Amino acid sequence: MRIGELSRRTGVPVPTIKYYLREGLVPHGERTSPNQARYDEAHVHRVRLVRALTEVGGLSIAAARDVLALMHEPGRGRLGSIGKVHFAVQAARQPHTDEPSESSVARTNDLIEQRGWHVRPTNPARAALAGVLDYFTRLGQPDVLGLLDDYADAAEKLAVAEIDTLGGRDVDHMAEHVVMMTVLGGALLNALRGLAQESAASAKMT
Amino acid sequence: MRIGELSRRTGVPVPTIKYYLREGLVPHGERTSPNQARYDEAHVHRVRLVRALTEVGGLSIAAARDVLALMHEPGRGRLGSIGKVHFAVQAARQPHTDEPSESSVARTNDLIEQRGWHVRPTNPARAALAGVLDYFTRLGQPDVLGLLDDYADAAEKLAVAEIDTLGGRDVDHMAEHVVMMTVLGGALLNALRGLAQESAASAKMT
Repeated sequence: MRIGELSRRTGVPVPTIKYYLREGLVPHGERTSPNQARYDEAHVHRVRLVRALTEVGGLSIAAARDVLALMHEPGRGRLGSIGKVHFAVQAARQPHTDEPSESSVARTNDLIEQRGWHVRPTNPARAALAGVLDYFTRLGQPDVLGLLDDYADAAEKLAVAEIDTLGGRDVDHMAEHVVMMTVLGGALLNALRGLAQESAASAKMT
Repeated sequence: MRIGELSRRTGVPVPTIKYYLREGLVPHGERTSPNQARYDEAHVHRVRLVRALTEVGGLSIAAARDVLALMHEPGRGRLGSIGKVHFAVQAARQPHTDEPSESSVARTNDLIEQRGWHVRPTNPARAALAGVLDYFTRLGQPDVLGLLDDYADAAEKLAVAEIDTLGGRDVDHMAEHVVMMTVLGGALLNALRGLAQESAASAKMT
């Protein structure tokens, strides 16, 4: 298909697709004339993937390119590289917080230990968690910290179910699945929280 | 305190604080001379709040200003306006998705009905949920859609616990609490998912 059809199929404007091509987020099509190229289903899929990363996941163009490169690098078939992709997409999505305080780092370590979670020291979510805990403390929202166990319970339960869906999958598609689970799963949970919170509030108030 | 002290207390550089002042995100201090002003604890708190909204919540400066204006508008003491703040902060955080498909909107409505959730038609999370469902479908990730009930269970359980923490609070602080619960609670959950996913994956692989 030509670029116009690629645009119709994905709902992404032609100039945006050209930008993705220039930035190396989407591979070039097969050139059929000096200023025309042919695209296929793999391009449709890739454009949608870029869209999910940038629009839903909020990744910058540079971060999306890095994550896509890791997802498609040779040797990604090995399980170790799935973990690398998981860390990369997480790191790209975590908020920019200052260096976390010692007490929040300690609290994070305690929580991981109490839960019996196996988490490498390099997991970017460690610093993210400690950084967010600092915000709660500084803003005087101790009640929400009382919910830490509820959040951890929810995260643990979901993680087990999420990782179970990896089972039936060939290792080639795992990297993409992990990225989508992180990005789209997070957005899904966010939206559902927004609905459930309104409902819980309305039940409480009436 | 002077602006330098405000900067030290909050860890936010002076030029950034000046930018917040110019953009109306932080109220001006009490002027003590033509080019000096005095700031107090309320300013410290406000700068941290702006930081939480923009750095952790990923809100744009304009969106943060709108949310802060709603949080502090006269009459916010009434419960109806708490709901307004909740919708505003959610709308600012939801991903930019295209108009959702009819089938995803129907799926969203079904889920809300099956759950017995009371959700107004104007809740911005409705369109967000439908939009994310479309991404899953288009990217061929049906397994994750099988987890929809798990995500909804988690969201519901958390929402009930979250709304419970509102109980003891005077109505004046509710708006801020709701915003922080949405923004920081979401970041907390994200980080915890990142930790729990690694742990669940490592348990599965060994």
